Amino acid sequence: MNFQSYFPVWNQLTDAQRDRILGSLAARSVKKGTLLHSGDDCTGLLLVKSGQLRAYILSEEGREITIYRLFDRDLCLFSASCMLRSIQFDVTIEAEKDTDLWVIPAEAYQQILAESAPLANCTNEIMAARFSEVMWLMEQVLWKSMDKRIASFLLEESAVEGTSRLSITHEAIANHLGTHREVVTRMLRYFQNEGMVKLSRGVVELTAEAKLRALQGA
Amino acid sequence: MNFQSYFPVWNQLTDAQRDRILGSLAARSVKKGTLLHSGDDCTGLLLVKSGQLRAYILSEEGREITIYRLFDRDLCLFSASCMLRSIQFDVTIEAEKDTDLWVIPAEAYQQILAESAPLANCTNEIMAARFSEVMWLMEQVLWKSMDKRIASFLLEESAVEGTSRLSITHEAIANHLGTHREVVTRMLRYFQNEGMVKLSRGVVELTAEAKLRALQGA
Repeated sequence: MNFQSYFPVWNQLTDAQRDRILGSLAARSVKKGTLLHSGDDCTGLLLVKSGQLRAYILSEEGREITIYRLFDRDLCLFSASCMLRSIQFDVTIEAEKDTDLWVIPAEAYQQILAESAPLANCTNEIMAARFSEVMWLMEQVLWKSMDKRIASFLLEESAVEGTSRLSITHEAIANHLGTHREVVTRMLRYFQNEGMVKLSRGVVELTAEAKLRALQGA
Repeated sequence: MNFQSYFPVWNQLTDAQRDRILGSLAARSVKKGTLLHSGDDCTGLLLVKSGQLRAYILSEEGREITIYRLFDRDLCLFSASCMLRSIQFDVTIEAEKDTDLWVIPAEAYQQILAESAPLANCTNEIMAARFSEVMWLMEQVLWKSMDKRIASFLLEESAVEGTSRLSITHEAIANHLGTHREVVTRMLRYFQNEGMVKLSRGVVELTAEAKLRALQGA
């Protein structure tokens, strides 16, 4: 499997456009925890080959909230926000797992974007997908109480990791959800008393998924 | 001033594309308070000639929050969300003032989008601008306290309306900010005690903008 099979509209690009991308891209392998992009740097577009990235925003006081995650074949636009002048926000992107990816310089992508309707439309779809994720998050933050959001997060995390035994700290959960560690700790203890989870150092084990699901939907 | 001078990339479209749009669009004049779009209806794209529209989302319990506003020359994409399959959220759009606008059917726009790089890129920029507004709002909701958000809202509203005497109910302010009327009323009374506003039925008068600005930035 090579780059050509990962790039979304490869078979709709001209030979010249393909050469321009192939001549400018860089392959990278990064360890879990690596910071790939921050602030308004024009890092370039990130195309995930395998692994997992997390995009989050930061408050002035250093609080975090995860706005979306990127998995295999996902293309990150906002690490190349210099490409679109209307993007007026900064995201931070870090590797949540060891990740193989390609970096496509914003300039090369932008040149092709200007002339290729297929690439521009595909970029539109990608942005619309991220927009939808952010709108979902907005609704969660606005209308859902923290107990439901923590229940949803644990269930989603368990599905992504394929295990009911999650190696994650309370601090990390708080950073995903945009809240304080104390809030998470208090809620997880309540969940434990209700028999929904079992807590140990750096581990949250889901012991009654049905109960968590009921809480999430309540 | 006619439609051609309002549509963003008119001079980059072919004659056939122009005819397709002109042959399918409809002009509308609506009164303040008119609901123009709701749910997942495919109303079409809305291009504002003059007036003011408000896009908001609704909770299951009927709470509202304004996500962006549209002014003269603004084009609304999300009233035609059927056009982009990746859009998975619903907005409601109402006229905040008497408004003249054009409705462009999603199908006609989408056909041109598929073949026109300029229109696709312009659509990208519009979506990126809305995305930026939503990210700004997300940061407000997450990290800013309600007193600062109400102060910001009053200052912005005063700038948009060009007056320090705002005809607006506490309920309407709550619906813009995604909170309850009681929260707004309590805060406005506090502002009044501090000499920042003067309240009367259906009116909030800004009496000390500098103080509101200081609060907003605090």
